[in-house]
Amino acid sequence: MNKTILTLVAVVLLFNCSTAQKVAESQSINKSKVKSSMIKALEWQEAHPIIALAPTDWTNGAYYTGVARAHKTTKDMMYMAALKNQAYWNDWQTFDRIHHADDIAISYSYLYIDMNEGRKNFVDLEPTKKFLDAHLYEDDNWKAGTDKSEYGRTILWWWCDALFMAPPVLNLYAKHTNQPKYLDDMHKFYMETYNQLYDEEERLFARDMRFVWTGSEKDSKEPNGKKVFWSRGNGWVIAGLALILDDMPEDYKHRPFYEKLYKEMAAKILEIQPEDGLWRTSLLSPESYDYGEVSGSGFHTFALAWGINNGLVDKKHTSAVLKAWNAIAACQHDDGRVGWVQNIGAFPEPASYDSWQNFGTGAFLMAGSEVLKLKQI
Amino acid sequence: MNKTILTLVAVVLLFNCSTAQKVAESQSINKSKVKSSMIKALEWQEAHPIIALAPTDWTNGAYYTGVARAHKTTKDMMYMAALKNQAYWNDWQTFDRIHHADDIAISYSYLYIDMNEGRKNFVDLEPTKKFLDAHLYEDDNWKAGTDKSEYGRTILWWWCDALFMAPPVLNLYAKHTNQPKYLDDMHKFYMETYNQLYDEEERLFARDMRFVWTGSEKDSKEPNGKKVFWSRGNGWVIAGLALILDDMPEDYKHRPFYEKLYKEMAAKILEIQPEDGLWRTSLLSPESYDYGEVSGSGFHTFALAWGINNGLVDKKHTSAVLKAWNAIAACQHDDGRVGWVQNIGAFPEPASYDSWQNFGTGAFLMAGSEVLKLKQI
Amino acid sequence: MNKTILTLVAVVLLFNCSTAQKVAESQSINKSKVKSSMIKALEWQEAHPIIALAPTDWTNGAYYTGVARAHKTTKDMMYMAALKNQAYWNDWQTFDRIHHADDIAISYSYLYIDMNEGRKNFVDLEPTKKFLDAHLYEDDNWKAGTDKSEYGRTILWWWCDALFMAPPVLNLYAKHTNQPKYLDDMHKFYMETYNQLYDEEERLFARDMRFVWTGSEKDSKEPNGKKVFWSRGNGWVIAGLALILDDMPEDYKHRPFYEKLYKEMAAKILEIQPEDGLWRTSLLSPESYDYGEVSGSGFHTFALAWGINNGLVDKKHTSAVLKAWNAIAACQHDDGRVGWVQNIGAFPEPASYDSWQNFGTGAFLMAGSEVLKLKQI
Repeated sequence: MNKTILTLVAVVLLFNCSTAQKVAESQSINKSKVKSSMIKALEWQEAHPIIALAPTDWTNGAYYTGVARAHKTTKDMMYMAALKNQAYWNDWQTFDRIHHADDIAISYSYLYIDMNEGRKNFVDLEPTKKFLDAHLYEDDNWKAGTDKSEYGRTILWWWCDALFMAPPVLNLYAKHTNQPKYLDDMHKFYMETYNQLYDEEERLFARDMRFVWTGSEKDSKEPNGKKVFWSRGNGWVIAGLALILDDMPEDYKHRPFYEKLYKEMAAKILEIQPEDGLWRTSLLSPESYDYGEVSGSGFHTFALAWGINNGLVDKKHTSAVLKAWNAIAACQHDDGRVGWVQNIGAFPEPASYDSWQNFGTGAFLMAGSEVLKLKQI
Repeated sequence: MNKTILTLVAVVLLFNCSTAQKVAESQSINKSKVKSSMIKALEWQEAHPIIALAPTDWTNGAYYTGVARAHKTTKDMMYMAALKNQAYWNDWQTFDRIHHADDIAISYSYLYIDMNEGRKNFVDLEPTKKFLDAHLYEDDNWKAGTDKSEYGRTILWWWCDALFMAPPVLNLYAKHTNQPKYLDDMHKFYMETYNQLYDEEERLFARDMRFVWTGSEKDSKEPNGKKVFWSRGNGWVIAGLALILDDMPEDYKHRPFYEKLYKEMAAKILEIQPEDGLWRTSLLSPESYDYGEVSGSGFHTFALAWGINNGLVDKKHTSAVLKAWNAIAACQHDDGRVGWVQNIGAFPEPASYDSWQNFGTGAFLMAGSEVLKLKQI
Repeated sequence: MNKTILTLVAVVLLFNCSTAQKVAESQSINKSKVKSSMIKALEWQEAHPIIALAPTDWTNGAYYTGVARAHKTTKDMMYMAALKNQAYWNDWQTFDRIHHADDIAISYSYLYIDMNEGRKNFVDLEPTKKFLDAHLYEDDNWKAGTDKSEYGRTILWWWCDALFMAPPVLNLYAKHTNQPKYLDDMHKFYMETYNQLYDEEERLFARDMRFVWTGSEKDSKEPNGKKVFWSRGNGWVIAGLALILDDMPEDYKHRPFYEKLYKEMAAKILEIQPEDGLWRTSLLSPESYDYGEVSGSGFHTFALAWGINNGLVDKKHTSAVLKAWNAIAACQHDDGRVGWVQNIGAFPEPASYDSWQNFGTGAFLMAGSEVLKLKQI
């Protein structure tokens, strides 16, 4: 306890949580402290609402997915109060670009509320259904490959973040409404993205076609000559995989594909975990911004802890996950703010002690929600 | 002062405010401390909005009735700011089940604003009027006794909570708009509920027909063989009576009925007050959940203090009321949260140090608002 | 640091920040402390939303103008998050009285967002344009001089506060949309107000015609026989002038008029600054309410610091401005609330340690935003 307080003091004094990480290498956690850190994060974020485009945008979608997972583990009504409040004021709407995976992410929270609040006539899933049907079954430029941008937008989910935004919602909607076709359709589009962006050698996802090597001299490279693999981008994918597997039928025909992909990525993420527990924003070029970044690290920690809790990652990695959590927790300010979060972006960029975003808080809550379930060594 | 701080520390350490109640038996209060506790409760609640069905639901109705009463006593604009803010975003709407007393409770706050804010074209009482007219004058299953449920829903206000939700609003609407017919109609329906649920022997209300003894072996009983009288249920009634009497014309022909009922219940509530000041959730079976419950206790404390302040309860009971307040205040967390509140329900159920609800905060504010007016012994 | 803490303690104990001002006469400031005071003020105000008539009313307009200026200086995304959040929920609407300058003040924040957030299809300036066109080009009673009130409402902007509410918005709209006609129209109406309310001898504005001397015995007078010049009223004007000049083209033909007026008023405001740094609510009768008032003082401090930063006020006055800021900062409560703010009004009235308003917080943020740019002596 004293050690943790000293850690936090150190963070404040040094304005750098990476410094604190060395202190935080303890291999155990105090679960009531994890819970209170999570509640403080929630309270701070609720008091600091932030939108990119709307309260229904993907930033809030990711945040409230974290809130839902925190509720799933703790049953603390503080989380459900926040979930219902946003859903009510959002009138259960998605955001409005029907072919953009980002704009359905918020529905994960709506589905969670409907699956956990018995009240009749409260949740309205009609806007979610409308979005999903349009998203899957209406034509658009991306699907048709007629988009004129140079980003390689030739598939529905042309950037890896999309694998967090839409597939877990489709998977959960299929389960909740007992309509497996949505899961099959999810799989179809997931494979397109996998085929385009997954790097089998590195077992990581390129963020989008700009970062896929073609053998040309123009291929984007880190200063050390390696490929650019964005920590948060891969965090979206592996956290999304954990969400999907958590609610996918055990006997679903394509489940082995998702388990295999999850295991490959989990192993890789563990291999490259920095000494102090926190992943750098450029996974293969940690020296580019040599301090832990919390949104990516939060998603990795969530996914790895989930894997341990569900038998897909060996329990021997528990200490690595606890180290990651303790380092993440040391990045939280005294008032609850989760700092060291890279802002909205599409590739590695800096973060700082003060930098925050709602989805960073979401990642923090997701990580905590699975860390709470770990059996400590 | 030190004593109070020690009390709070004790509460935190023991996770049980009933323990603290023994320490809190002081017979005096510090009014500026009461005021600051109330403001902290307001601030915490405003930062933790919660809905059952909507921001216009009865839970918010009860909460904002407490906020209105706190403003009435203190004139602190913090309360009026919160009142106006919710009313604005609610667009002065009631909730939508026109025959459900719950859904008009929020209008108490709208009426209060209109009676205390001079601004033209700000308050819109049209939705309130529409609801009240439909509620009173349109037919429905409950009134007709054709409801198929087994709950005995053969009258408009078939559960005792309803006597807090609708009658004070009708009473205040009659006064504010100078239309006594609404008061007469209130009385008509009030009598139906009184006749069905009031237990003259015990001087308490059954929550609904499920808890009225018929002489059958199936009658619901506490383990000790006594009838089930729910603390918060009776809190709704007696707090509602204080609200009604506060704004009912002195010469209203049925006023003596309400004064008599109030006095009977007040005497009973005082008789059964537990040693430590806080009522248990099952009034005649305190051992069922043997710790103080704050929402019921808050409503009782409000009603009793109001009675002393208005000459309906003997001043000799002031120390009992102060003891209750001090015990309630000891259930407030350092951050302002009012704990030990039984969640939404219809009969005695557990509460805990952490359990909270907006209407619990409302009860806290109502209690404080009348305690502030007590002349101390 | 210790000194500042002692100052704050003194304030709390004495319930009077004017007492603290003597301690606060330091001629330097700690800029990171200014920044954190500003953030605390923002956080407190966001947690305590308040409306007079609507979230789009002038009180919020003034507040969010302060938030915009704080963002302009610091680039802290806390401010932009708050700006976007209110704008989103306000749906980019003005308030609705098209000939009332108050109701367009909120558009300063909308314009600021549009000029600083690159996102397409986010900001909607159409309601602003509609309001401005109606405000300038449609007839009404005030313009026609056919208003029946005794206030002398014979011009569009018949009260001096209006010079903060509408002209900076027109000026910024003209710049942002590259339509100089709005600036010309602003000037036309500005001159009407100047001609009616500016007292050339005192170099201050009467609040409205009720306070303009006509030579009659009925002229309103302070007890000391002087004219009534309201601190906040003149704060609206001089802060509005700084806002206007900040975005007015350097070569605009009427710019010299605004610079001259600004300099006259700035010199006067400096001349009458009380010893402890804070202006009293009645500028020429400080003894009427002999303590500093923070909303007026905040606007004066903003305007004077802006003048130093932009070469219109001599740098030798820096110490006076720093003294004012330190005295203002001493009026902030520990929890962030900006106290000693006179409530909504139209002439000098009392304030207190506890009194607050959103526009007071706006004045605080505006003052801080320019104080941060001062080169200290």
